[in-house]
Amino acid sequence: MEGLIIAFLLNLILASQAHTYTHHQNNPLLRMKTGGSSSLKYPLPNCLSWRIAVETGNLHDWNNLVPWECYDYIRQYLLGAQYNDECFMVADTAKDYAQDIENPKDGKSIWIFDIHDTLLSNLPYYTLADASFGDIPYSNPKFNEWMTEGSAPPLSGILYLYKNLTSFGIKSVFLSNIDDKYREVISSNLKAAGYTTWEKLILKGTSDPSDVVHYKSAKRTELVNAGYRVLGNIGDQWSDLTGHHVGDRTFKVPNPMYCVA
Amino acid sequence: MEGLIIAFLLNLILASQAHTYTHHQNNPLLRMKTGGSSSLKYPLPNCLSWRIAVETGNLHDWNNLVPWECYDYIRQYLLGAQYNDECFMVADTAKDYAQDIENPKDGKSIWIFDIHDTLLSNLPYYTLADASFGDIPYSNPKFNEWMTEGSAPPLSGILYLYKNLTSFGIKSVFLSNIDDKYREVISSNLKAAGYTTWEKLILKGTSDPSDVVHYKSAKRTELVNAGYRVLGNIGDQWSDLTGHHVGDRTFKVPNPMYCVA
Repeated sequence: MEGLIIAFLLNLILASQAHTYTHHQNNPLLRMKTGGSSSLKYPLPNCLSWRIAVETGNLHDWNNLVPWECYDYIRQYLLGAQYNDECFMVADTAKDYAQDIENPKDGKSIWIFDIHDTLLSNLPYYTLADASFGDIPYSNPKFNEWMTEGSAPPLSGILYLYKNLTSFGIKSVFLSNIDDKYREVISSNLKAAGYTTWEKLILKGTSDPSDVVHYKSAKRTELVNAGYRVLGNIGDQWSDLTGHHVGDRTFKVPNPMYCVA
Repeated sequence: MEGLIIAFLLNLILASQAHTYTHHQNNPLLRMKTGGSSSLKYPLPNCLSWRIAVETGNLHDWNNLVPWECYDYIRQYLLGAQYNDECFMVADTAKDYAQDIENPKDGKSIWIFDIHDTLLSNLPYYTLADASFGDIPYSNPKFNEWMTEGSAPPLSGILYLYKNLTSFGIKSVFLSNIDDKYREVISSNLKAAGYTTWEKLILKGTSDPSDVVHYKSAKRTELVNAGYRVLGNIGDQWSDLTGHHVGDRTFKVPNPMYCVA
């Protein structure tokens, strides 16, 4: 009986919270799992299942909002050891691959890195109330304001990969969807973070395609046409890793904070 | 000082265990994480990081052996609620997608399903000593012996997806890398498991390409050339979801037991 009362009170609290978070009403995941027609076995989302759906690319239309029930889970994941460990796991897997493949030393072997949340971490920004670990809608002006500080630290795992690839004679190409007007601040931020040299830093020009998959595909095609071999490609978004000329092998860096479709 | 002694003893125990499990010597992950040149922060693998590396496709050359340190973790994951929940998460995401897309009712809209560990579960086999949750090398004769019993249950999440897609007027095509000589037993197993009807059941013929990505690509190309629209494609292996004509959207079902490269 006591259990029933506790369950009833818990439901009341959750129901009241659901009404508080009105900006989440359009989140399909929330609709799916708390709506009356839900087919799932659980009244609340299983946050590990949600994260795995995001990481595998199964779920890529999640409206860029972390389900509010997963706020604590995602916060603890990002600030704890697991996120860092998963980044090192990606980096080590990519390093092992790059170490084993044939690489003619003709200066044409490249590795493509995405920039934000791949080379550089936006985590300090996402801990702020302005971003709230992806649990509130993304604000482009606020993010740009933070980015122009140029103080983003590296993701340690990816810096470790970058250094290893450089030592293998593989050149780095940094390819980002960010506007070219930020070239100077991004360039100095990258250097401060430990990425001291690169073959190309490609940022988005005014005449480039607006869609990220088309834009990145076009830039990779230009690289291939210029005689480069894309041995690998690493990014935190599936839109970094799909389209044309994605590279001989792609690597997904974890990111449950936001989604660039 | 005490801490040092404990660490020393622990290392001794781990070293002796590593020698006991001689059949794991070729596992690159083990080599990576217990070898002297390991770059990781952890002396033992973080099994969730390992599983996520497998699910994202970052790690696809793991020699088909679950790291022995992750045996308990994988066993508990598969027998507990998490595996089932993740399968339902994939199924619900795919269902939501299929429900929202345009689907001309001309009988040409299809969904491709892999069979083993997508439609039908091999989990009862993997619980046996013969398979040991993927922690010992895969035995083709033993698996085939089990498969010919025709007693594999459905993955509940995928059966739920199949029923929903059927109700949306999307036809199912079952595409497997398994030899066509097993057609009869697979066919009756599928029916017994609840998959009562299908547009095509494609199994591997003697003249088909041996490589799974080439084989499945060729079969999907034949379907597209015959006028079918592949709205979606679901499988537990990345080799089900890569190559040509993969479909408008792909869905990865979890499987940390084995890897079909």
